[in-house]
Amino acid sequence: MTEQPASPLHAAQRDGVNDMDPAAFRAAAHEVVDLIADYLEHVEDHAVLPPIEPGSIRPLLEAHPPEGPEPIEAILADVNRLVVPNATHWQHPGFMAYFATSASAPGMLGEFLMAALGQNPMLWRTSPIGTELEGVVVQWLREGSGLPEAYDGLITDTASTSTLIALAAAREAAGFDVAAKGLAGRAGLDAPRVYCSTEAHSSIEKACMTLGLGRRAVVKIPANERYEMDAQALAGAIATDRAAGRQPLAIVATIGTTSSTSVDPVGAIADIADEEDLWLHVDSAYAGVVALVPELRAPFAGWERADSIVVNPHKWLFTPFDASLLLSRRLEHVRAAFSLVPEYLRTLDRANPVRDYNEYQPQLGRRMRALKLWMLVRYFGLEGLRRRIRYHIDLAQGFAADLDASPDWERLAPAPFSTVCFRFRPASMAGREDDPEVHAWLDRCNTQLMDAVNRTGRIFLSHTRLRDRFTIRLALGNIRTEPRHVALAWDLLRAEATRLLEAETMLKELP
Amino acid sequence: MTEQPASPLHAAQRDGVNDMDPAAFRAAAHEVVDLIADYLEHVEDHAVLPPIEPGSIRPLLEAHPPEGPEPIEAILADVNRLVVPNATHWQHPGFMAYFATSASAPGMLGEFLMAALGQNPMLWRTSPIGTELEGVVVQWLREGSGLPEAYDGLITDTASTSTLIALAAAREAAGFDVAAKGLAGRAGLDAPRVYCSTEAHSSIEKACMTLGLGRRAVVKIPANERYEMDAQALAGAIATDRAAGRQPLAIVATIGTTSSTSVDPVGAIADIADEEDLWLHVDSAYAGVVALVPELRAPFAGWERADSIVVNPHKWLFTPFDASLLLSRRLEHVRAAFSLVPEYLRTLDRANPVRDYNEYQPQLGRRMRALKLWMLVRYFGLEGLRRRIRYHIDLAQGFAADLDASPDWERLAPAPFSTVCFRFRPASMAGREDDPEVHAWLDRCNTQLMDAVNRTGRIFLSHTRLRDRFTIRLALGNIRTEPRHVALAWDLLRAEATRLLEAETMLKELP
Repeated sequence: MTEQPASPLHAAQRDGVNDMDPAAFRAAAHEVVDLIADYLEHVEDHAVLPPIEPGSIRPLLEAHPPEGPEPIEAILADVNRLVVPNATHWQHPGFMAYFATSASAPGMLGEFLMAALGQNPMLWRTSPIGTELEGVVVQWLREGSGLPEAYDGLITDTASTSTLIALAAAREAAGFDVAAKGLAGRAGLDAPRVYCSTEAHSSIEKACMTLGLGRRAVVKIPANERYEMDAQALAGAIATDRAAGRQPLAIVATIGTTSSTSVDPVGAIADIADEEDLWLHVDSAYAGVVALVPELRAPFAGWERADSIVVNPHKWLFTPFDASLLLSRRLEHVRAAFSLVPEYLRTLDRANPVRDYNEYQPQLGRRMRALKLWMLVRYFGLEGLRRRIRYHIDLAQGFAADLDASPDWERLAPAPFSTVCFRFRPASMAGREDDPEVHAWLDRCNTQLMDAVNRTGRIFLSHTRLRDRFTIRLALGNIRTEPRHVALAWDLLRAEATRLLEAETMLKELP
Repeated sequence: MTEQPASPLHAAQRDGVNDMDPAAFRAAAHEVVDLIADYLEHVEDHAVLPPIEPGSIRPLLEAHPPEGPEPIEAILADVNRLVVPNATHWQHPGFMAYFATSASAPGMLGEFLMAALGQNPMLWRTSPIGTELEGVVVQWLREGSGLPEAYDGLITDTASTSTLIALAAAREAAGFDVAAKGLAGRAGLDAPRVYCSTEAHSSIEKACMTLGLGRRAVVKIPANERYEMDAQALAGAIATDRAAGRQPLAIVATIGTTSSTSVDPVGAIADIADEEDLWLHVDSAYAGVVALVPELRAPFAGWERADSIVVNPHKWLFTPFDASLLLSRRLEHVRAAFSLVPEYLRTLDRANPVRDYNEYQPQLGRRMRALKLWMLVRYFGLEGLRRRIRYHIDLAQGFAADLDASPDWERLAPAPFSTVCFRFRPASMAGREDDPEVHAWLDRCNTQLMDAVNRTGRIFLSHTRLRDRFTIRLALGNIRTEPRHVALAWDLLRAEATRLLEAETMLKELP
């Protein structure tokens, strides 16, 4: 056999024990750049939600692990052949479901650099730059949001983790030393309680499950007709619990709930937290970035009194998933909840006390998430970030105004930020919404309507229930969304609603 | 003013509300590729551990967030100017501290693709490919490791999280319904207990802190002279606890402890777990990948009886941080511990039951970690992965043999995998190690020795304490480490030891 000159991509893969040959890596990485750039340029060619059924991808994938090596070209071809067509396209400008989580260019480049530099800022010494840069970026975001210097914090993976950390700190701040002694068999700690509204995110319940408080610990305070926590009801619930000998630990107020983006009255809640000496955690995972815009800070009044605050850059700050900012003015309680320094993690060669971030979170290892944030805040500048946030809010308000001007559509909640809650409600049914037959028809009709719009592949919307009404949500915040996409959503909604009304089955059932 | 033609990197950044212009992104991403490829080609030019003191980087960083945008070139220049020189170089082949965590080329490319595709497989519908690919990759790793089909699982961020999930599942499996009812004020659940050896990783204690069990719940079973859990002592501790009315929940056995990589007798421990009806979790975060090599599976005997197992691809499988594999044969208890489906996460458009991975972990959102694993297993093939693992073990065994042949050096633990524990102990002191003065001198001397080697910047070693002796660890597993790096470590250790002995201060103190 004649030896073939190997392509640079194949070199050093066959019998070696090293990584891909450097020249081959460079070539492959340039290929990946083009794959990604092509993907992003043509992302609108894909159906936002792929038109496939569960279980349909797995048969296309090799069930058993390969024994021998495959060339990187074949693997990248499979990314295009198998991964891209079966992805839900969060980067698509028509992604308006849940909360838009889009990755901007500087954020993506930051992620690639993170992976290549392999930093793990669990200890200062395992990543001095990762540690100190995180301190700086946390302060950038704090300062940009107009919060006092008393706040410091860290970047975690998700709001779920940030809230879990906050509630673990609340357990310590209450003086129960749960980190050491646990929750079981503790005199005077038989019924811990955490308060949030009926509209609060499931992560609060989940954190309580994880933390051993249990779902039972979560007291859901009623919300008013605007889906805002009723502060008086909160005070009453705490009083009732205290009278019954239960142990209030923390209150979670939300600025921008997940269902309707409603805003709890944080000032009034902070008064109660003060009086009752309870930890106040503010969940502003989605809306918190709006505080970067000084003229839009009204909904945040009072959050500067919170013990802890969570804001997710990976939601509406164009940061690739994952990045959640946890701020606290009582970080010593976070440390009390999670600090544990075994011998093999002790650092011996320095006199200065350092911050070792692993002492502030449930995990030991951690990613250098500060890098992508540092890059994207610099690339856009605070002014650029503010401009984009204002723009998404303007687009949402325009959509809300269109709905309000249309007698066949009903808005189901205020839209303080960039998310609009609504349903199709033919004008003929106005005033009859509470009739059980009308109610049931509207639920069925809007379920089908959302499904029909999503099946076009051009827009992706999700739903919630507000006062037991099936509610469609349109959530903006994707960096690629333009006015034409919001207009398209509105066109598709109206067209599909008309089609549904004209369809025999729906007409027959018309109450 | 005359308008200047904008460079493609500057376009669309000034007044826009969109992301970086596509052409500019492509150009910037190609620049990043070259930055990364150059970094990796010259990674050995950097001191593994940067010669800086805590607090020295922060003054170099802008304390306040920028108002206006900065060009991407300036930001990338700062990556080279500020980030790289202040990083601890985990990618450096001389990184032999802790456990080597190195990112291979296909893994890095996978991370970049993950960031760009923005998948969030929290629900099947939010990433069908992320969900189904994870199922496939989990099975690849299970099958490759020779574990039975009864195991299924998921990929989490870290072993800390995987172990936390396992112990939360144990709480549910024990029938206490902690997810709903919590741990506080529960009759018959006043003293839960989790068993591991004195050598077990701190993540077990930390998980118990987080889960509300408290550090008090952790019973540390003595280890034998090989640092392996004493199974008889375990049985005794459980019996004592039961007799005292405490509630054993779970046993954690370790295959490859963090200090010395010792191997607990998993078979004997599994017998006890069976008899006592306790959840058995096997922590094989570091060593688990060795099970990919069929002829090296002896230390894993019995792990196929565990209720759950953790193996970290981001440690010794060349996967960029983060990726931890959690396997369980009782995944229904994991789901019981973490499942919570609020209305806004319900999926309505499908009949088939799907796996929504958020129901199996404390977080809601999650990264598509399967992609990088799928790419790297295919790129190297199982055979290529096995070859690299064998190679690292051979290198470590060679180093251990060198130590064993040198009268001035003492091995402090068996080296069943790729990590060697040792200290410098001049032959003149042989037999006198337990003399308190000698003991203290050896501790001081080896502390200085490790520090001196680390200060060369060419090798990075970390330490532990084994039977109260300061112990240097040399841990291999970095994909870039070659025989010359291990030889260099050995040379530096000997040279620095000689220098230390010759230094006046050390000589004076010689006992």
